[in-house]
Amino acid sequence: MPLLEKLQWRYATKKMDPSRPVPADKVERIIEAARLAPTSSGLQPYEILLVTNPAIRKRIAEVAWNQQQVVDGSHLLVFAAWDDYTPERINQMFDYTNDVRGFRNEGWEAYRQQLLATYPQRGADVNFSHTARQAFLGLGAALIAAAFEEVDSVPMEGFDPAAVDDILGLHARGLKSVAMLPLGYRAEEGDWLVNLPKVRRPREQFVTEVA
Amino acid sequence: MPLLEKLQWRYATKKMDPSRPVPADKVERIIEAARLAPTSSGLQPYEILLVTNPAIRKRIAEVAWNQQQVVDGSHLLVFAAWDDYTPERINQMFDYTNDVRGFRNEGWEAYRQQLLATYPQRGADVNFSHTARQAFLGLGAALIAAAFEEVDSVPMEGFDPAAVDDILGLHARGLKSVAMLPLGYRAEEGDWLVNLPKVRRPREQFVTEVA
Repeated sequence: MPLLEKLQWRYATKKMDPSRPVPADKVERIIEAARLAPTSSGLQPYEILLVTNPAIRKRIAEVAWNQQQVVDGSHLLVFAAWDDYTPERINQMFDYTNDVRGFRNEGWEAYRQQLLATYPQRGADVNFSHTARQAFLGLGAALIAAAFEEVDSVPMEGFDPAAVDDILGLHARGLKSVAMLPLGYRAEEGDWLVNLPKVRRPREQFVTEVA
Repeated sequence: MPLLEKLQWRYATKKMDPSRPVPADKVERIIEAARLAPTSSGLQPYEILLVTNPAIRKRIAEVAWNQQQVVDGSHLLVFAAWDDYTPERINQMFDYTNDVRGFRNEGWEAYRQQLLATYPQRGADVNFSHTARQAFLGLGAALIAAAFEEVDSVPMEGFDPAAVDDILGLHARGLKSVAMLPLGYRAEEGDWLVNLPKVRRPREQFVTEVA
């Protein structure tokens, strides 16, 4: 399986080459992987901001410990999760599903009612914790897709989410940034991590068998 | 790129064939994909329970809305996130990293101190919200790996986490279940979802370009 080789190849790129942009078709396939990734009840409770504007990426870097991959990469993906589950958002996705399938299904409609009766009432904190997890599943799909495209990336949580939300106007859209993924190509000479071995806990410390 | 085809092929399998177990080497490669997936600061703040025991899977199904994939699949992966970041857990991973690399790095040690000075003090709720996100990134890697192995799977959040924690003895180990992934093979004749089209929001409702 080539997937494990891709996961071995990828690493959290510390220095990107600002002179080498990622081709647009590769960026599209990376985004498409996130779009196709599953989410709880199929609600897709997050969006991706595809930021190329250099001035805006400079402002984002300033609230992200000046991590230069934000500006040295050619594309910045910002994963922004729904701040809450509302009836409107739930209905929109169920209605859309009915439109695509061309019919209404009784079991599916009962499931809609179950979500409507529970999710909005749980409170924004519980719901945002849930939507953010879905965004991270999509982040995983995107960074694996980047590896398949031989594009370097670095999943990033070290930033001030409220400041990024301000810069991108996310608050008014009911979104909160949870992770960023700069895309670009490694600049090996300036990257302290590129030649270090990947470190993961051994399987026996990661897996417990219940047989 | 074959990845997008794999993402199109996979679906949330609703009915699995209990007579067809997943070969062990495939299960190992699926787990290995999660083990190799990145996590914030490389802390890998979650573990996987690989449950094959039928009686235990039956008990888990009972607290998971009797979703039969839990028992009809041959293997059940339970993703269990650290309930908190403690100094011991942080130090263990930094020490292990030094062991693997064979040297201590000043910047890396300063980063250790930064995490020690901030993470444990944030409180268990903030930290668990953080560790659960990392587990979902690994869940994404595992379900993509399953698709590459042509193994069916279904990411599952519809269960009582506290009850699953009890059944698997996770509380004493400082772990909390956040997601499950039954592995098996589809039983098409009993699966209402297998022949329905995959529904995802169109790109223009999922991506905002900031150019």
